[in-house]
Amino acid sequence: MDLVIRGGTVVGESGPYRADIGIRDGRIAAIYSPGNAVEARATIDANGKLVLPGVIDVHVHMEIPFCGTVSSDDFASGSKAAAFGGVTTMIDFAIQAPGETLAEAVAKRKEVAAAKSAIDFGLHCGITDWSPATRGGMREVVEAGIPSFKVFMIYKQEGWMADDGVMFECFEEAASLGATVCVHAENPYLIDVFTERALASGRTDAVQHALSRPNFSESEAVQRAVYLAAMSGAKVYIVHMSASDSARVVEEWLACGYPVLAETCPQYLVLDNRAFEGPDGHLYATCPPIRFEEDCEYLWGAVAGGSIQVVSTDHCSFTRAQKDAWGGDFRKIPFGLPGVETLLPILMTHGVGEGRLPLERLVEVLCANPARIFGLYPEKGTLSVGSDADIVVIDPKRKKQITPGSLHMNCDYSPYEGDTLTGFPDITMQRGRVIVEDGKFLGAAGEGRFLERKPAGGDESG
Amino acid sequence: MDLVIRGGTVVGESGPYRADIGIRDGRIAAIYSPGNAVEARATIDANGKLVLPGVIDVHVHMEIPFCGTVSSDDFASGSKAAAFGGVTTMIDFAIQAPGETLAEAVAKRKEVAAAKSAIDFGLHCGITDWSPATRGGMREVVEAGIPSFKVFMIYKQEGWMADDGVMFECFEEAASLGATVCVHAENPYLIDVFTERALASGRTDAVQHALSRPNFSESEAVQRAVYLAAMSGAKVYIVHMSASDSARVVEEWLACGYPVLAETCPQYLVLDNRAFEGPDGHLYATCPPIRFEEDCEYLWGAVAGGSIQVVSTDHCSFTRAQKDAWGGDFRKIPFGLPGVETLLPILMTHGVGEGRLPLERLVEVLCANPARIFGLYPEKGTLSVGSDADIVVIDPKRKKQITPGSLHMNCDYSPYEGDTLTGFPDITMQRGRVIVEDGKFLGAAGEGRFLERKPAGGDESG
Amino acid sequence: MDLVIRGGTVVGESGPYRADIGIRDGRIAAIYSPGNAVEARATIDANGKLVLPGVIDVHVHMEIPFCGTVSSDDFASGSKAAAFGGVTTMIDFAIQAPGETLAEAVAKRKEVAAAKSAIDFGLHCGITDWSPATRGGMREVVEAGIPSFKVFMIYKQEGWMADDGVMFECFEEAASLGATVCVHAENPYLIDVFTERALASGRTDAVQHALSRPNFSESEAVQRAVYLAAMSGAKVYIVHMSASDSARVVEEWLACGYPVLAETCPQYLVLDNRAFEGPDGHLYATCPPIRFEEDCEYLWGAVAGGSIQVVSTDHCSFTRAQKDAWGGDFRKIPFGLPGVETLLPILMTHGVGEGRLPLERLVEVLCANPARIFGLYPEKGTLSVGSDADIVVIDPKRKKQITPGSLHMNCDYSPYEGDTLTGFPDITMQRGRVIVEDGKFLGAAGEGRFLERKPAGGDESG
Amino acid sequence: MDLVIRGGTVVGESGPYRADIGIRDGRIAAIYSPGNAVEARATIDANGKLVLPGVIDVHVHMEIPFCGTVSSDDFASGSKAAAFGGVTTMIDFAIQAPGETLAEAVAKRKEVAAAKSAIDFGLHCGITDWSPATRGGMREVVEAGIPSFKVFMIYKQEGWMADDGVMFECFEEAASLGATVCVHAENPYLIDVFTERALASGRTDAVQHALSRPNFSESEAVQRAVYLAAMSGAKVYIVHMSASDSARVVEEWLACGYPVLAETCPQYLVLDNRAFEGPDGHLYATCPPIRFEEDCEYLWGAVAGGSIQVVSTDHCSFTRAQKDAWGGDFRKIPFGLPGVETLLPILMTHGVGEGRLPLERLVEVLCANPARIFGLYPEKGTLSVGSDADIVVIDPKRKKQITPGSLHMNCDYSPYEGDTLTGFPDITMQRGRVIVEDGKFLGAAGEGRFLERKPAGGDESG
Repeated sequence: MDLVIRGGTVVGESGPYRADIGIRDGRIAAIYSPGNAVEARATIDANGKLVLPGVIDVHVHMEIPFCGTVSSDDFASGSKAAAFGGVTTMIDFAIQAPGETLAEAVAKRKEVAAAKSAIDFGLHCGITDWSPATRGGMREVVEAGIPSFKVFMIYKQEGWMADDGVMFECFEEAASLGATVCVHAENPYLIDVFTERALASGRTDAVQHALSRPNFSESEAVQRAVYLAAMSGAKVYIVHMSASDSARVVEEWLACGYPVLAETCPQYLVLDNRAFEGPDGHLYATCPPIRFEEDCEYLWGAVAGGSIQVVSTDHCSFTRAQKDAWGGDFRKIPFGLPGVETLLPILMTHGVGEGRLPLERLVEVLCANPARIFGLYPEKGTLSVGSDADIVVIDPKRKKQITPGSLHMNCDYSPYEGDTLTGFPDITMQRGRVIVEDGKFLGAAGEGRFLERKPAGGDESG
Repeated sequence: MDLVIRGGTVVGESGPYRADIGIRDGRIAAIYSPGNAVEARATIDANGKLVLPGVIDVHVHMEIPFCGTVSSDDFASGSKAAAFGGVTTMIDFAIQAPGETLAEAVAKRKEVAAAKSAIDFGLHCGITDWSPATRGGMREVVEAGIPSFKVFMIYKQEGWMADDGVMFECFEEAASLGATVCVHAENPYLIDVFTERALASGRTDAVQHALSRPNFSESEAVQRAVYLAAMSGAKVYIVHMSASDSARVVEEWLACGYPVLAETCPQYLVLDNRAFEGPDGHLYATCPPIRFEEDCEYLWGAVAGGSIQVVSTDHCSFTRAQKDAWGGDFRKIPFGLPGVETLLPILMTHGVGEGRLPLERLVEVLCANPARIFGLYPEKGTLSVGSDADIVVIDPKRKKQITPGSLHMNCDYSPYEGDTLTGFPDITMQRGRVIVEDGKFLGAAGEGRFLERKPAGGDESG
Repeated sequence: MDLVIRGGTVVGESGPYRADIGIRDGRIAAIYSPGNAVEARATIDANGKLVLPGVIDVHVHMEIPFCGTVSSDDFASGSKAAAFGGVTTMIDFAIQAPGETLAEAVAKRKEVAAAKSAIDFGLHCGITDWSPATRGGMREVVEAGIPSFKVFMIYKQEGWMADDGVMFECFEEAASLGATVCVHAENPYLIDVFTERALASGRTDAVQHALSRPNFSESEAVQRAVYLAAMSGAKVYIVHMSASDSARVVEEWLACGYPVLAETCPQYLVLDNRAFEGPDGHLYATCPPIRFEEDCEYLWGAVAGGSIQVVSTDHCSFTRAQKDAWGGDFRKIPFGLPGVETLLPILMTHGVGEGRLPLERLVEVLCANPARIFGLYPEKGTLSVGSDADIVVIDPKRKKQITPGSLHMNCDYSPYEGDTLTGFPDITMQRGRVIVEDGKFLGAAGEGRFLERKPAGGDESG
Repeated sequence: MDLVIRGGTVVGESGPYRADIGIRDGRIAAIYSPGNAVEARATIDANGKLVLPGVIDVHVHMEIPFCGTVSSDDFASGSKAAAFGGVTTMIDFAIQAPGETLAEAVAKRKEVAAAKSAIDFGLHCGITDWSPATRGGMREVVEAGIPSFKVFMIYKQEGWMADDGVMFECFEEAASLGATVCVHAENPYLIDVFTERALASGRTDAVQHALSRPNFSESEAVQRAVYLAAMSGAKVYIVHMSASDSARVVEEWLACGYPVLAETCPQYLVLDNRAFEGPDGHLYATCPPIRFEEDCEYLWGAVAGGSIQVVSTDHCSFTRAQKDAWGGDFRKIPFGLPGVETLLPILMTHGVGEGRLPLERLVEVLCANPARIFGLYPEKGTLSVGSDADIVVIDPKRKKQITPGSLHMNCDYSPYEGDTLTGFPDITMQRGRVIVEDGKFLGAAGEGRFLERKPAGGDESG
């Protein structure tokens, strides 16, 4: 053995148990009943610690041009911060530019990410310029290890929006390829109505960002996306679901037997409309918006109960300076929040710590389900023999308060400032190498590998 | 008494019963147990006959500019044919032209109709050019006796289409006015996909009209319209529902307690895709399209069971010459079918005669429900004392085969040619005046009155 | 004409309208638009009054041996009181004694009732002694004009209880005869549990009567009865439904398309557990028990919304002396309440007057639905030409406070004492004869006719 | 290490994977990536083999007095046969005799079983004589390691039947103790009806056994049991569910969010009414009965889809001689079938082999779910480090035809005679000791341990 982690409490998918873990050649070579591990060249003492699979954040946007600027974390800073937060795999987006083939978009993005990422990464392919040629190019993308696409039901002006016909055709093609389609579900026509209404009443302050996107502007879009997916037989995955009404729509489809997949994000679980109060309110604008306390509670229930299968971050950092460019007009705020580093601690603290989620459900929604849904299982997402040794060791008693300087993302604020969190890892390991230990970064930009994913089969919902 | 109808079987809303009907000053002045009627200046012997309320066709398009031509029945020919078919009230549409106020649109259409219509008529107001001014104009329209609006979810190129935001705002305003919104529910983006697909495979024949508008291109739109209506609290009325899947959507909403209103038309009940075969296939193109036998059967069940509350015609005649302008390209067929004259006979023959509907349900879907939903009850739609004496007398044993020359619409074909129907009236009476008797027209263009309708209250579903 | 009622507001099934009513030979001979009535030998001026069909109380128990005594109203006093309350038809029960044939039971009861009843009456046949012979006798009962049976899921000791097998067989036979089965749905085993529990804690006071019969002791039985009915295809009618949970069960079956019929009674709509407080608490014991305010509200909603189709009384009077025999032990209270005289006023006052029911819904649940469901329509239950002239004239402005001496039932208390009610009729008429006028009884015992009813067809739910 | 199993395909709950397993002191001490296992004192070569957790049969009846005889397998023969079939844990029933305390019943049964069982075992406690003392005794039973009770909704004559009141009180008490209640759900009153009907028509042949217990005689009871459980908050587990209608009832409750647990048995999955044909038909009588092909198909779907969480056997052997005592009267057949030895092979062959179940779902329904639901997890039911080394090694290519002499149960016939099955283990191991190898029994009566189980927590459904 190259390395043994001794004495920890391993969080498996069926619950926590005491075990030692042996690692050889970057993979888990053995799991031992405590005390049964052989000698190894190196040992980590995990007594009193939790040992989890590395977290998979399936929804991040590093250095993305958006809202007239570029998100402030590049793949280097973002992936380093991810490692500090226990994230060992991330999936970013290669979004097609006008006139570009999907393969070109993928190639470019892959090159940028591969040069800088300190952790393993995959890509989804964002479709924006639909044509027979684009449709024809989807197979090549899947065969290149990218069996998941994304369509946007909004962003008309940005040129990203797919109308219902495009979305349906994309579903059809994905179904034939066994691929999954991620959908940003919001109804732009409804948002326009409420935006105009805010302007007509002379209001442009930050909370208008949320008020101009009422719950049903999301839930209607979720209903429509799933209806069209059902007609095509496609696997549909609703990204960053934020409204209780949307979760209810998903639950009705699940009750009817249609296997809809859905994710939410920490910002929709622990923040609410009160965030928009005060001079920093505009820092909280993201899309879809942070909503109300009752939405948070409903979403926690859906995460616990299984109708939401994944929690990711939609990480898209902007600095205060970038955000401040809004000039008092909510329509001009760059939408997005930093989050990849705080994903695991927030779910440990407010989910597990407050009794909303058992530890094994946390592992399901952060590790196993993302891996299964996006074709990485069992290499990633589980602590099983043969799996990659992507491992996080946590001291459940250690707490850390979020302050401006305490995080590693390239962002000079956090939406969670002042919160005291457990769950920041003592050790983060990728393929057997320790990349974070005791607050020190031991990895390096460019060491992350591009993950060729395979189309997922059957029913992966958890 | 001015007139007594003696010895007939009166079809009330609770079922048929024997009674005499006395008429004075254009209204029903008395209903007598058989033999109890007083003497009157005139008598109609209805022994062995059925006596029904005059039919209300709430969906007709006379002389409408559409698809590059004008529908072939004007208000004179159309209303005369209506009377031959037992229809004594029709509701046509005043559709806003670009830049026009709703009030202007209504005034123009009312003038044209009033000059020519031989039967009483109302108008719905079609909204196409949304703006704060248009919204503001809705109240005036309602106060002028037009408490029902129409929005189109398709017809982008024609400039009629309402996007989801417009539709929602229109629902909101209608809800505040107690008005009903009629919705043409089809998804144009999905239709575009299937239209392109037909063209790409070199098919432009008539059946492509139907195949390019699959069931879910309608049912998705129905779902969306009702969702947005439910968010606004509006009364929503789905016009000309043609697909079984749409009826299922409506039934789910009704099961949840939301009072959706829906109509279908005879062409969706008795015709199916086989109509498109042969050289006359293009004559059958209407919108939404005629579908499949299983849709017909499902819709009959929905009409009988109560989830569809109204049967109307969507009467929109084009002559063979007009239809023939298609030149072999399904996209160029003027969409529409003649039907106002055959509505009652088709429901009598294929509904009542074939055991699908009891007589009292026929009266509900053709008379009472249309009157209740559109604010004409109890003046119209029922044989009650005080109601207008709009009455139809039918010999249930008399049959008539449909041939090119047998009908009175300005249209040189019928989709029902060759069919043998019962239910053409012996007598049609409006406000106590006989306007059709034994195949002779005794009415006159311009004698029909414009009906000022009132917003309907409560739950009118039947 | 023998008689004309002029100037009243007639409450038809579709709503109130102004009309005159002409009566000849005991039937409605004509309905006139106001002012159109011919001269008649007699005239009733109904200006400013409501004119309703006579009420049909389908659930009464006159002079029934029960709980060790005999209910205090005989057919004479009970039917006279009924007339004072606007009830012109009642259906009582011929309950089989051990060893008796159904025909014998019916013959006996019919004789007693016919001798004394001042109003028209029918009978349901209560089955208590199941055997092949009893089953075989059901046809004869139906053919004798009694197409409705009753089974009891409780009353083991009384020898009335039908176990699930008997109930199922009774459903089967009724289904083959087109008959309806009325079910008293309570689960005796559950009631035993809670009765023992009360005793074990030393409580025998009146409220224990209610607490020992929790909601689910009724709703479970409703669920079971309907399940078995559905298996047999029988028409099932749940009598005196008292619990919100039971209404929910019925609503679930209706939503699935199974046409369950259900009734409730005024005591479940306007009284609640507070009635058991004080020294007179035991006077309120009836079975099933009066429940909680939230049950009342739910049941009002079900009556208004259509899932409960009938309101009857379960009239079963006992005098204070009879009730007082309980001696402080809730198990010994004779169960039952007087009610036939106050049915219509309570629904007028607390239903129509407080905005819970429109007038036409009151007519449905008190007149039209009872008539349709139990095979009396259209002779009874509606004001239509040809119908029996069973008519009630009400002054909607006249109020009357309930006091010990203000009612005509043979009972020295009323559960509604102190309440001020509208809706007591000025005139009650049966088959054209005035039997109550201005507080004077003009009828006579024995003038009521036995009504031979016919099996109801189709769907009678309202 | 004491022992290493090398090179096998281990079936974990998330799917099969290649691994070696190391065993020390009767437990799994390590799981290794293939080739990483250390040397051990003994090695099993599992190349090309499947390695599964030992099966847990939670429903067996050894040497039970029933139907006037005693079931033919005692704990010795039954447990030995179990081992041949890969079952390493069984749960039998301590059924209270009249007048006996629950603790006495448990003590007696435990003594008999402990003396003879060759495999580990637990007990459920069958309640038949309800009283405050019995209720009071439930806590002691739970504390003695028996957190599961059983009630019978049938077996009146046998004195076992719990009426609805008893069942409800038992649910209540179990809920307060965190215990699970197993319910035999059939409605005896309905069965009596159909039994009488068979006799009345002179039919006593074997198939009458099935025909006298129609689907709804089970599904009604399931509905009722779950309703009462829901009212009490109890964990309810429906044993040996046999009818498609019952599964539908369970599915409706699950859709509403109530966590009903349900099991079925192989006889309901692979046998149908054709079994009753021929002279041996009576051998197939068990209770509830084998049903129809469509029930089998529906149940397979429920097992695969998750609404049935466990497959057990209801093993209750009778020899041909015992069965032949029926004398042509279906009412006298001893009800029960041998099955503990064939459970795993039947699910391997007809479930996994025919594509109905993935291997991991087989492990869930035979191992993990039984362990979780009945408080044995993770000691039993999973191949995890620290778990008991109860392990089965199977050669998936080896087939065996069932013949009279091929099985080890004390029963001279098998319902599956002639069937060719895969899935009989090469090796069965209990706590690290091989007890069956290559068709030889290496265990011994009395070596099985009594398992003190703990109340299960949370939601264990799979």
